[in-house]
Amino acid sequence: MKISIIGTGRVAHHLAQKLNFVGQTIVQIYGRDLVKAQALADRVAAQGITDYASLPSVDLVVIAVSDSAIADVIHKVHRYRPDSLIVHTSGSTELQVLSQKHQRSGVFYPLQTFSLQREIDWLNTPIFVEAVVEADQQALNDLAQQLSERVYIYSSQQRLSLHLAAVFACNFSNYCYDLAKQIVDQQQVDFSLLYPLMLETAYKATQHEPQQMQTGPAMRGDKKILNLHQAMLSQQPQLQRIYELMSDGIMQRHHSEQSS
Amino acid sequence: MKISIIGTGRVAHHLAQKLNFVGQTIVQIYGRDLVKAQALADRVAAQGITDYASLPSVDLVVIAVSDSAIADVIHKVHRYRPDSLIVHTSGSTELQVLSQKHQRSGVFYPLQTFSLQREIDWLNTPIFVEAVVEADQQALNDLAQQLSERVYIYSSQQRLSLHLAAVFACNFSNYCYDLAKQIVDQQQVDFSLLYPLMLETAYKATQHEPQQMQTGPAMRGDKKILNLHQAMLSQQPQLQRIYELMSDGIMQRHHSEQSS
Repeated sequence: MKISIIGTGRVAHHLAQKLNFVGQTIVQIYGRDLVKAQALADRVAAQGITDYASLPSVDLVVIAVSDSAIADVIHKVHRYRPDSLIVHTSGSTELQVLSQKHQRSGVFYPLQTFSLQREIDWLNTPIFVEAVVEADQQALNDLAQQLSERVYIYSSQQRLSLHLAAVFACNFSNYCYDLAKQIVDQQQVDFSLLYPLMLETAYKATQHEPQQMQTGPAMRGDKKILNLHQAMLSQQPQLQRIYELMSDGIMQRHHSEQSS
Repeated sequence: MKISIIGTGRVAHHLAQKLNFVGQTIVQIYGRDLVKAQALADRVAAQGITDYASLPSVDLVVIAVSDSAIADVIHKVHRYRPDSLIVHTSGSTELQVLSQKHQRSGVFYPLQTFSLQREIDWLNTPIFVEAVVEADQQALNDLAQQLSERVYIYSSQQRLSLHLAAVFACNFSNYCYDLAKQIVDQQQVDFSLLYPLMLETAYKATQHEPQQMQTGPAMRGDKKILNLHQAMLSQQPQLQRIYELMSDGIMQRHHSEQSS
């Protein structure tokens, strides 16, 4: 397939390089900043552009920009490529955001956390595809299967639910790590001491129900420790509020379980 | 060493079996419920007891009970074994809770999340020891080194900080997984689709600063998605509150970073 990619962020980076790696032809990388666009383009033997009018005829245009920019971008891409298959890569943007402006629309959503510093295990990364036109959906499915062993045709509704869940499971759990690091940093305690615990916690949540794996003072209903911890956080109201709300949630979750 | 263990919970289970495995002699397991005490005792060739008066003379008594019960238990154990080294295994209980009643007090705190269903990687589990008497501290240090390659002599203050951080990094991250599962369950979406993301998120937080690894709509300041997610959670006020507070925290964290 001949593919153009709109965007120079983390998803664009990983996707362009992986598509190139499996033998697809990346023709152009569009970016508002030419230096960034060309830098990514150079990695995949493509051309960096900053003008939508320069988009050539390709089989697929991938919009890999921030969710809030998608509606604006589809408008511009459609103008120059009204007949191409155009997809976005977002978990939380409905297909309809594209399809109301462009007939041959689709979604190509890899469920993974992308960082520029780290390689992605594409083979195990679930990819969710969706398209207005049946043949396009099949083409996206085939393309996704070149990247991953876990490809699914999902509705926008299912994808939205999954993405919201991912915010909890990934973004918020990472923020919990970040808060933990802030706490130990204050006592010059080494954050790496928590690594085995963090890895074991994540791993065991993939082997058993997370609810069954819950531990800690809130789970035990240990008021004394909960109060002690609240007191330790008295100078950090933000952490204290999070501690309180999460602990309340855990207590309610496990209390209502016991009484059901 | 001849060791008696007070408690039949998760920590008592894992610790008794590991101590037995490395060649220590577990003499007795105390529990309020004789069936439970004897069940654990049978696994380590010890005797199950329900009466503190039956505690024999040993080198070490390990109190592995819930934090809220420690103060009561030390009182009883001290009465029958006033000269033995007695330790608790709690992250959030100061040494002083023991030492104000008993001279030869100490702490033996393994920083790990214990589940009955899962084996512990003891070698990589940090163990923190502390004791009133220097010779006791050395003995605990030696004992801990038979279990783990990562043994530290830590003050109660440092241990408390570490345990509070562990609540965030482990208990709260697990609760985030639990909430994620509740969200996908409602749409009959398979929770296992999130496993690669959960594992990658945890792993990369051990390879880079969690703050640098933060992703998601709050990190990007994407108000549209934040509002969409809030609307999706409108029927679940508990999840909505957590979503809002965590997102606010992430936004503040990264906004103040940018402006500093």
